[in-house]
Amino acid sequence: MSAPSVSYSITVRLDLPSRPSVVSTLTTVVEEEGGVVTAVDVSASGADRLQVDLTIATGGENDADRIVKALRRIDGVSIGRVSDRVFLAHLGGKLTINSKVPIRHRDDLSLVYTPGVARVSKQVAEHPEDARRLTIKRNTIAVVSDGSAVLGLGNIGPLGALPVMEGKAALFKRFADIDAFPLVLDTQDVEAIIETVKNVAPVFAGINLEDISAPRCFEVEKRLRAELDIPVFHDDQHGTGIVATAALMNALKVVGKDIGEVRVVLSGAGAAGSAVLRMMLAAGVEHVTVVDVEGIIHEGRPGLHPSQEWIAERTNRRGLTGSLSDAIVGADVFVGVSAPNILTEADVQAMAGDAIVFALANPVPEIDPVIAARHAAVVASGRSDYANQINNVLAFPGVFRGLLDARSHVVTDDMLLAAARALAAVVTPEELNATYVIPSVFHPEVHETVAAAVQRAALEHPEQLDA
Amino acid sequence: MSAPSVSYSITVRLDLPSRPSVVSTLTTVVEEEGGVVTAVDVSASGADRLQVDLTIATGGENDADRIVKALRRIDGVSIGRVSDRVFLAHLGGKLTINSKVPIRHRDDLSLVYTPGVARVSKQVAEHPEDARRLTIKRNTIAVVSDGSAVLGLGNIGPLGALPVMEGKAALFKRFADIDAFPLVLDTQDVEAIIETVKNVAPVFAGINLEDISAPRCFEVEKRLRAELDIPVFHDDQHGTGIVATAALMNALKVVGKDIGEVRVVLSGAGAAGSAVLRMMLAAGVEHVTVVDVEGIIHEGRPGLHPSQEWIAERTNRRGLTGSLSDAIVGADVFVGVSAPNILTEADVQAMAGDAIVFALANPVPEIDPVIAARHAAVVASGRSDYANQINNVLAFPGVFRGLLDARSHVVTDDMLLAAARALAAVVTPEELNATYVIPSVFHPEVHETVAAAVQRAALEHPEQLDA
Repeated sequence: MSAPSVSYSITVRLDLPSRPSVVSTLTTVVEEEGGVVTAVDVSASGADRLQVDLTIATGGENDADRIVKALRRIDGVSIGRVSDRVFLAHLGGKLTINSKVPIRHRDDLSLVYTPGVARVSKQVAEHPEDARRLTIKRNTIAVVSDGSAVLGLGNIGPLGALPVMEGKAALFKRFADIDAFPLVLDTQDVEAIIETVKNVAPVFAGINLEDISAPRCFEVEKRLRAELDIPVFHDDQHGTGIVATAALMNALKVVGKDIGEVRVVLSGAGAAGSAVLRMMLAAGVEHVTVVDVEGIIHEGRPGLHPSQEWIAERTNRRGLTGSLSDAIVGADVFVGVSAPNILTEADVQAMAGDAIVFALANPVPEIDPVIAARHAAVVASGRSDYANQINNVLAFPGVFRGLLDARSHVVTDDMLLAAARALAAVVTPEELNATYVIPSVFHPEVHETVAAAVQRAALEHPEQLDA
Repeated sequence: MSAPSVSYSITVRLDLPSRPSVVSTLTTVVEEEGGVVTAVDVSASGADRLQVDLTIATGGENDADRIVKALRRIDGVSIGRVSDRVFLAHLGGKLTINSKVPIRHRDDLSLVYTPGVARVSKQVAEHPEDARRLTIKRNTIAVVSDGSAVLGLGNIGPLGALPVMEGKAALFKRFADIDAFPLVLDTQDVEAIIETVKNVAPVFAGINLEDISAPRCFEVEKRLRAELDIPVFHDDQHGTGIVATAALMNALKVVGKDIGEVRVVLSGAGAAGSAVLRMMLAAGVEHVTVVDVEGIIHEGRPGLHPSQEWIAERTNRRGLTGSLSDAIVGADVFVGVSAPNILTEADVQAMAGDAIVFALANPVPEIDPVIAARHAAVVASGRSDYANQINNVLAFPGVFRGLLDARSHVVTDDMLLAAARALAAVVTPEELNATYVIPSVFHPEVHETVAAAVQRAALEHPEQLDA
């Protein structure tokens, strides 16, 4: 049995005798099998029978099956349709494209389509900068994935990635009023991805890359940034970088340590790891050691890729070699964006006093946050069921809102750092403590604050903005 | 001065003395300058001054300027902002992408994004046919253009094409509840277009090609049809083919002639011309002569392209050579999808009795419909200011609705012909007459009728449908 969760919620339709004792039996039976009844809706009622829709948070598919079987055994109860709330929420997809203009009669048609639209087309063709005034380009971005590294599921291809990209687009709308369209690509070839995104770019004012596996994602991002005149953001890199850095800034305040003094161990040198490193360096971290599956990254380690060489040149000043356990001794900060259960309790014990542990691997962290908290002063993870969730949703909506509002052609490290600082500052000094170093995604000020900071940073470089 | 039109409408803000006589002067002055006042809105009022927003249909930019100048000369009136209704309707673009699922709190987030979405992604990755149940693919199509042949404006490029494609997407929503996204491409290379559309295809259940110049559009359409498992429709070809053929079916009923007997002259062998020909042949036309800029197409004419050879093999049984005027003598039907003013009054006089003339070049037809009507029994054009407008909006929404509802992998000539027959049948025998051979786009039954016919035709071939 796992802990019941809304993401494994089912709704069971039951037909039962209309006696109060029977309804209370339902709840008892569900609880005995490890589920939690979250709603009881009577969908039809007769003189002596009731039809009830019972919504139950379960611990997973097996738990759900067991609960339904147990309900079936109750005397006088028959089971109708069993539906899965997650699948129900996805039926027919999660996005819709609507017309902002009414088309009621011939006059409307003449305004928004032919012949009226011809004048607008002519205007935009002659003055491309007017595309941001007279077309959807102003507020539209692409969420692009090749499905090669989707959540913890790996390389599941474009159709498998689509539900995630739709969800992402829905979040862009919800938190920053951005029109985001999910483009899932039927290719995993770097050159083909670059060409395709460039070819469809005119309608978009920004590109959000998503769940593209490393190291291909670096080349895709670098080339698109160089060859497009709209900002290109890879959420797995830059989103994680912003939120982790913001949380680090606040965690350091909690323990009263200076960002330039602390020793940081970063586990993971993939997409997220490289970006977190880059952001932390920009934020003023001086002493970092990076560890990947082969151990500590140091200059001269055989077989370094270009991105690892970049890391070796900028980190590990003491020239450490060895494993994660060698690196962690005496460290002030551990940041993991790597793999489940690679940090031991003994490793955390070996860290400096008032240690900070960010175990961000998902869904299973580098160390159980509860165990880490026995020895560390501040613990964060990617999970929503512990304090201090490092969630990219805190960053990407506001970042793109700021970029779009500034009409920026680019996204720079300055802007990302401004986003991190703004996000950190949403937590006021009065609110700040070891269990609240980063705000909730539903905090009413997060996205506007981040957007304003990114826009300000962008406006400092008018040459990077659209007319 | 041209005829006032809503697509050249302006709204003028005026500040004027609050005397009835002044307001009536406004209307008089506008009319004297050839405009028509379509709305008078008082936007603010004081003891002795009024602020009025005057909406005026004008004959074009010059007329609008002249009208504003004349208003300025009225004693006591001052002119504020002058806005152009067409541009106002396009501000910020015409489409918006919305989330269909609420994201109010953590539970919602867990359902539609991580962790819940992972199960849906896994399901779709393992059962790709579920993409039409659990993602937006079910109801989403792309409106694709490279901007090479936009309306009458020619090769204005992707950004110039965008307002048209947005309008098209808005029409898809309005008339068939389809989610259409405008993809304007930053390439006009045939191979690059094909590759790009194939690479972005997973999220779409259909591709509507638009305003791609001939002959490139033929290759793009042919290859995409062969290489994609979703229907590919080129509106400039197939949309025009359906509507013109439907109108021809009804026009023949009006004059009492048989489709297999009539002699048809088709002017134009480009995208629209080829498709109209193909549809008319499928509908039973036996005798066609096709004329292009070089004259009558016949076997053995030097320098025929492959698409012209296709035409030569299937038309012109009498082996005519010469010009349009040679072909037209004694013809029962003229269909023009070619160029302005190429058909003379004498040409129409030379046709058979009860002639049918479809002059579809836009915005200036092959012959002024008023002149054609002096001698022909039935006249149609592409213009909204004459009877019998041949408008693609009558076809494309319903065609795609039918294709999506059938989950069709393809669009076949059978389906297009079914659409044409259904469209023709919307005009009842009681309604049918020489000035009403084709219904209005706002006719309440058009789109559902076409959709149902296409779906029926698709369902006859279950092997072409998604599971």
